[in-house]
Amino acid sequence: MQGLSAKIQRLIKALTILPGVGERTASRYALYLFYQDAQVKEELGKAALDLLEGVQSCAACGHLAEGERCLICANDRRDKHLLCVVENPLDIVALERMGSYQGYYHVLGGVISPLAGIGPEELNITALLKRMQQLQVELEGEVELILATNPSLEGEATANYLANLVKDWPSLKVTRIARGLPMGADLEYADEVTLARAFAGRDIYR
Amino acid sequence: MQGLSAKIQRLIKALTILPGVGERTASRYALYLFYQDAQVKEELGKAALDLLEGVQSCAACGHLAEGERCLICANDRRDKHLLCVVENPLDIVALERMGSYQGYYHVLGGVISPLAGIGPEELNITALLKRMQQLQVELEGEVELILATNPSLEGEATANYLANLVKDWPSLKVTRIARGLPMGADLEYADEVTLARAFAGRDIYR
Repeated sequence: MQGLSAKIQRLIKALTILPGVGERTASRYALYLFYQDAQVKEELGKAALDLLEGVQSCAACGHLAEGERCLICANDRRDKHLLCVVENPLDIVALERMGSYQGYYHVLGGVISPLAGIGPEELNITALLKRMQQLQVELEGEVELILATNPSLEGEATANYLANLVKDWPSLKVTRIARGLPMGADLEYADEVTLARAFAGRDIYR
Repeated sequence: MQGLSAKIQRLIKALTILPGVGERTASRYALYLFYQDAQVKEELGKAALDLLEGVQSCAACGHLAEGERCLICANDRRDKHLLCVVENPLDIVALERMGSYQGYYHVLGGVISPLAGIGPEELNITALLKRMQQLQVELEGEVELILATNPSLEGEATANYLANLVKDWPSLKVTRIARGLPMGADLEYADEVTLARAFAGRDIYR
């Protein structure tokens, strides 16, 4: 970046760390920040530094937490019979946004992806199995494991892998979130896999 | 943002300050940052805080500077006969990237836009006129003022306004960057104004 002072270049470089942010976007962000009030810059800087201490993975589910447990695991009024497995914390944010799920979560921290060199042992699976075993004992088998990995090739493979791991567990209910046409979609433009899923997963209408 | 700890929410809120960044993008950035090394978070935080002190507008041209003058104004081997007026510092970065311009710059800090309540008095114009008067005297009138505001409605109006201000100045050369078809464009899809400009600005080919 010719013609820019060292401090600005430093901030631009730091911003290119963010996902999907290249040098141009980072420059736009940095110069925009330059024109903001001191308070705004201070808040951003401090908030980023603040992540250094006190934010960690929840010991129970792998979600972000400030103490040992995340806000959801620490809430014992949620439904212990439901355990929803997701790929990452942002999925929890999305599911919590819908407001109707009252169970707990478990964050895998990714999906099985041989191409990216990620096998099952890289994921938060051992803790999941241990947690489910405990729940099975505590609730006498009345547990539902909801597989909510993304409907991608890797997400499906991961769901499949998990379902296989627990297929002989007595009375454990294993479900997969429905895959079909999203609201507002156009049948005409949907891909074959989505259409086949929507057909296979069809419901009684009335 | 349900289910996220206060520190993460604070960082997400701070990130939504950035231009074009909404809550979802900010969440993606924040969670991505969470998984980075301590060093990366520290660097971003410190770089943002660092902008608080030591970075200011260049006293001569309005570009970002760490001392009183920016790197370009402080470089006295550039061509004093050329003064290029741009809207903001990012335009300087773009023009410096082409590597062939050796003159100086002047940053207006925006464009005249009655709808946004920005009149000429909000822009860095008085300093520009003073600077040009000095240059005219020093270089005996051999000065070229290059109007490089964006080819938008406001950019054209601002260029026009500036050209009018100096139209009676003896021997001052005032130029405007060429507007026409960008490289790789398709004539078939170009708008009429661009086509008309490309036609009007046509060159001898050989």
